[in-house]
Amino acid sequence: MMEETLRGIVPPMITPLKDNETLDVEGLERLVEHILAGHVHGLFLLGTTGEAPDLNYNLRHELVKRVCKQVDGRVPVLVGITDTVFSESLNLAQTSVEAGVSAVVAAPPYYFTPGQPELIDYYSHLANRLPLPLYLYNMPSHTKVMIDPETVQKLSENDNIAGVKDSSANIVYFNKLRHLLRDRPDFSVLIGPEEALGNVVLMGAHGGVAGGANLFPQLFVDVYDAAVAGDVAQVMKLQERVMSVSEALYGVGRHMSSFIKGVKCSLAQMGICSDVMAEPLNHFCDDERALIHGRLLELGVELSVSSRQSPVDRVQSTESSRQ
Amino acid sequence: MMEETLRGIVPPMITPLKDNETLDVEGLERLVEHILAGHVHGLFLLGTTGEAPDLNYNLRHELVKRVCKQVDGRVPVLVGITDTVFSESLNLAQTSVEAGVSAVVAAPPYYFTPGQPELIDYYSHLANRLPLPLYLYNMPSHTKVMIDPETVQKLSENDNIAGVKDSSANIVYFNKLRHLLRDRPDFSVLIGPEEALGNVVLMGAHGGVAGGANLFPQLFVDVYDAAVAGDVAQVMKLQERVMSVSEALYGVGRHMSSFIKGVKCSLAQMGICSDVMAEPLNHFCDDERALIHGRLLELGVELSVSSRQSPVDRVQSTESSRQ
Amino acid sequence: MMEETLRGIVPPMITPLKDNETLDVEGLERLVEHILAGHVHGLFLLGTTGEAPDLNYNLRHELVKRVCKQVDGRVPVLVGITDTVFSESLNLAQTSVEAGVSAVVAAPPYYFTPGQPELIDYYSHLANRLPLPLYLYNMPSHTKVMIDPETVQKLSENDNIAGVKDSSANIVYFNKLRHLLRDRPDFSVLIGPEEALGNVVLMGAHGGVAGGANLFPQLFVDVYDAAVAGDVAQVMKLQERVMSVSEALYGVGRHMSSFIKGVKCSLAQMGICSDVMAEPLNHFCDDERALIHGRLLELGVELSVSSRQSPVDRVQSTESSRQ
Amino acid sequence: MMEETLRGIVPPMITPLKDNETLDVEGLERLVEHILAGHVHGLFLLGTTGEAPDLNYNLRHELVKRVCKQVDGRVPVLVGITDTVFSESLNLAQTSVEAGVSAVVAAPPYYFTPGQPELIDYYSHLANRLPLPLYLYNMPSHTKVMIDPETVQKLSENDNIAGVKDSSANIVYFNKLRHLLRDRPDFSVLIGPEEALGNVVLMGAHGGVAGGANLFPQLFVDVYDAAVAGDVAQVMKLQERVMSVSEALYGVGRHMSSFIKGVKCSLAQMGICSDVMAEPLNHFCDDERALIHGRLLELGVELSVSSRQSPVDRVQSTESSRQ
Repeated sequence: MMEETLRGIVPPMITPLKDNETLDVEGLERLVEHILAGHVHGLFLLGTTGEAPDLNYNLRHELVKRVCKQVDGRVPVLVGITDTVFSESLNLAQTSVEAGVSAVVAAPPYYFTPGQPELIDYYSHLANRLPLPLYLYNMPSHTKVMIDPETVQKLSENDNIAGVKDSSANIVYFNKLRHLLRDRPDFSVLIGPEEALGNVVLMGAHGGVAGGANLFPQLFVDVYDAAVAGDVAQVMKLQERVMSVSEALYGVGRHMSSFIKGVKCSLAQMGICSDVMAEPLNHFCDDERALIHGRLLELGVELSVSSRQSPVDRVQSTESSRQ
Repeated sequence: MMEETLRGIVPPMITPLKDNETLDVEGLERLVEHILAGHVHGLFLLGTTGEAPDLNYNLRHELVKRVCKQVDGRVPVLVGITDTVFSESLNLAQTSVEAGVSAVVAAPPYYFTPGQPELIDYYSHLANRLPLPLYLYNMPSHTKVMIDPETVQKLSENDNIAGVKDSSANIVYFNKLRHLLRDRPDFSVLIGPEEALGNVVLMGAHGGVAGGANLFPQLFVDVYDAAVAGDVAQVMKLQERVMSVSEALYGVGRHMSSFIKGVKCSLAQMGICSDVMAEPLNHFCDDERALIHGRLLELGVELSVSSRQSPVDRVQSTESSRQ
Repeated sequence: MMEETLRGIVPPMITPLKDNETLDVEGLERLVEHILAGHVHGLFLLGTTGEAPDLNYNLRHELVKRVCKQVDGRVPVLVGITDTVFSESLNLAQTSVEAGVSAVVAAPPYYFTPGQPELIDYYSHLANRLPLPLYLYNMPSHTKVMIDPETVQKLSENDNIAGVKDSSANIVYFNKLRHLLRDRPDFSVLIGPEEALGNVVLMGAHGGVAGGANLFPQLFVDVYDAAVAGDVAQVMKLQERVMSVSEALYGVGRHMSSFIKGVKCSLAQMGICSDVMAEPLNHFCDDERALIHGRLLELGVELSVSSRQSPVDRVQSTESSRQ
Repeated sequence: MMEETLRGIVPPMITPLKDNETLDVEGLERLVEHILAGHVHGLFLLGTTGEAPDLNYNLRHELVKRVCKQVDGRVPVLVGITDTVFSESLNLAQTSVEAGVSAVVAAPPYYFTPGQPELIDYYSHLANRLPLPLYLYNMPSHTKVMIDPETVQKLSENDNIAGVKDSSANIVYFNKLRHLLRDRPDFSVLIGPEEALGNVVLMGAHGGVAGGANLFPQLFVDVYDAAVAGDVAQVMKLQERVMSVSEALYGVGRHMSSFIKGVKCSLAQMGICSDVMAEPLNHFCDDERALIHGRLLELGVELSVSSRQSPVDRVQSTESSRQ
């Protein structure tokens, strides 16, 4: 259970897969250690970046158990329980508490788009049934609804709701959230998009859920530390690096999943884990992989030769036959 | 298995619930007989109207088995397998084929909004793995993506894809679909919104998936029959009745689910089944129920006194304590 | 002034231009005669198809005067006065009444998107200041707001508001409009998209504002006549022709203006008028013109050789230097 | 003409009106002096906050001339020339250059939503015809199109395009803009929403176009100065004040124009100018005025008694009869 207010960098981990039904277990172990080695402050499983809505439930539960066992209390683990089926959210929360997870995270249900009163009902009802603190997850690009700042404020009065992660990229919204919660320094307000991390932590936000921390965890911890220290010049310098990574790796594909595909493809190139995507999404094909490869080299990322003969690559070969 | 082209009225059945985990079994039986008594041409389970995305998987599988057993071949049964988890779609299709279902129906995955090439990949891959014919389900209000007419045309070449249900309400889109498929009279093009049924069947569409047929199945069969017969005056007269029902019953609530709540509430008033909604949605409260009650009377619907003492009402009483 | 209820086909005329500041006067004269020769029931100037928002005010006023003089009472003329500047709407209405126009048409103001109460205020205030009957113009793709059916119903009580043109393509919306206005047969409900004309007139709508009637006016009059006569088979046959025209000519470009560019380009190929677009839009370039040329031939449209040496072509040559 | 890169606070001035056809000339004079007394770095006329699209052209031209004469070179004046009519943009630019304006500003045309290639054509063509430097104005909430960062980058190569104002509130977009233009420190990147001013200037942005500076110009200049000095604590303290103003005054109404109405109503209460809105918008009614009055008092704003007997109030009384 979360006893202190969550602060810092909490990477939303991608989910390494061998195929649609199977975790890439070795890749997963490497990835967790790779991320923790960057001194992050927590780990967030089964968010959007983790492709949670597309993973079958066995995989989701297995992932939670495996990662908690491996992390073994080194950092708090958070688990996304977003679902259209209410009881599946509760099931995953139960597995989570048994595995030693610190908190759960839920975006609004996403087929019947709820109104604000429905959101208040939903989150209140959910929080009251959960064995763990709940973080609200504002993700309008995927759920098609904003959790209004006033709705967050109202829900913050529920003792079992501990914070909010905002992935809207809307800075006015984010600042309104922070303003409305100014008397609640214990209620975490975390930003999603890594491209805005410096801007908001410098002004007092609690931290960020930076997807790029799958690749370069220390970079985002450095941004956070510099911002907390009020070292504007250093934040600006590191932010420039963050923007270069974003420009190089996240815009290769055309669709909503380009970010995840770019991160997974990069991790595969770095010899960490497979780039297999959960169906219905496909990983990048050869042209896009070559593009990512070149851009990683330009960014100065070391790509071990041995990785190209690793189990990861064998997975890729098998998978590519589907295409 | 579907051997002939699907034509006529295929009501998207609501799912009668006792609570979030339990079917209202007696209500379900009454509802199925009520609908079949209207001479409909098929029955569509687990669509949007059936609240499928919010139902747990046990309920979905149980519903399919129960209804198929009860229908016992009197009309073709179709089952919605829309899901963000690919394997759950396949699981439900497997249960469906074993239960004797005629075809399955899938809307696009709805968290990561796919592009058109991704839709073609997804549906091709899905259709090739299915033991039953597949109907495409265009539902942009909920999935946030249109299946382009050209995408439907391309997918119609797959032998295992048998038709399309369009719930966009966009008449230009619908007519483009019909034009592009003019040389494929065997490929069913069905309309979702019942308010447009007359307009399109008169001009040659195969039929409709009219949600209001949960309440008044014969009315929609009559619209269909008059339209197929080219009896314009009769279609206009019946359409007027359809519009009156729509105006009276579907706009009572404020949110996306108003239609389903209105239908379920009306069915409860008619003594057929419970009006419990799957979480996170709530059924109508007393004020809204009274409004629906009055409007049903205005529409001349018989509301049996005995129904107000039925098991249905006991369910309602229990449920209302949650609010 | 409009004395009778408007019914039938009222083509939204494109605006023939020599350049951004100058009407193609000869082309305009040919176009008006070409359209009237198709036995249409009215003529609508300065709608979306007429590129009204992009035309300077001198051009708008000149166009109204010229066309009224030429039409000389043969059919009612309607003029679009949609504007973000209230007084410019009034100015154009004043010119219109002096020129002998029958009614004016206004879409909602389109920079500050109004709410429904603001729409009621706006249209009431406008209608009360106008010297001519007003038609409401629902055009959500361009104005980003629907005029709710209930708003139209309320406004229909204003004696100076005579009807509504709906270009939403939403058939449920259109049927709701017609249902709410069922006791007002004198209040014209016209449909915008020509691809839906048959569907709605067959069921009693007053007519349509078909953009394709710039090219083939008689075709749409024939659809209308067949629909009014309840001749379903004939409507279906003609609708097939309408869809073929739509498929061939309106989807050549990529942007919102593809429809207008396609119509203007076709008219130029038919030797009727120039295809110059008002800035900031460009007419089609050579490749797209060749495509349209081929498709017109496939549709069996006669393209006079002489037209290729006409003033129209000289305008094109001059204009193409801008690109 | 602009000779140096624009930096600092450039308030988008509201337009004081007596009625739809008449400037509130005395109010305008007071307002300009009120704003300049706050040590702002420029003045932006006829933006969205200035209700430009709803003002008739005489008013727009008169406003430019009057304000330029009054400012008399004390700060650079910028003028919004956004229009759907190309020649009206040019006309206003001509008046602007004659009046001594420093630069013009244009949002995308807003009835036919352009694609990115059309935006490049439009802005290139416009810039090449203008006698003054042009600033791009990204305003997707009103124009329904984003000017892509890559489009801005491409247009920045045009010598006559001097900068961009971004009112999207999307912080990822804003940071992408700044990253792509990192080698062009002379190209101004200004932020629209005042609630984000501190966040971005601290990280190096050139300044902001803060609507609240109509009311409290010095506050925003103080935010800017503190941010440029890297004084994070001071920026945070002032930002808190900015958020309080925003919360108190900008959310009183329901529609898109609430911000402008709130600013105008506050200025009227402060005795500076009239709160009349250009049609079709109405100013706040008595209840809303009372609310704003109370909130200004809570914010500690001095409301002179004499103002309540000023010409401003007489204008209000006259106007209120319209409602």
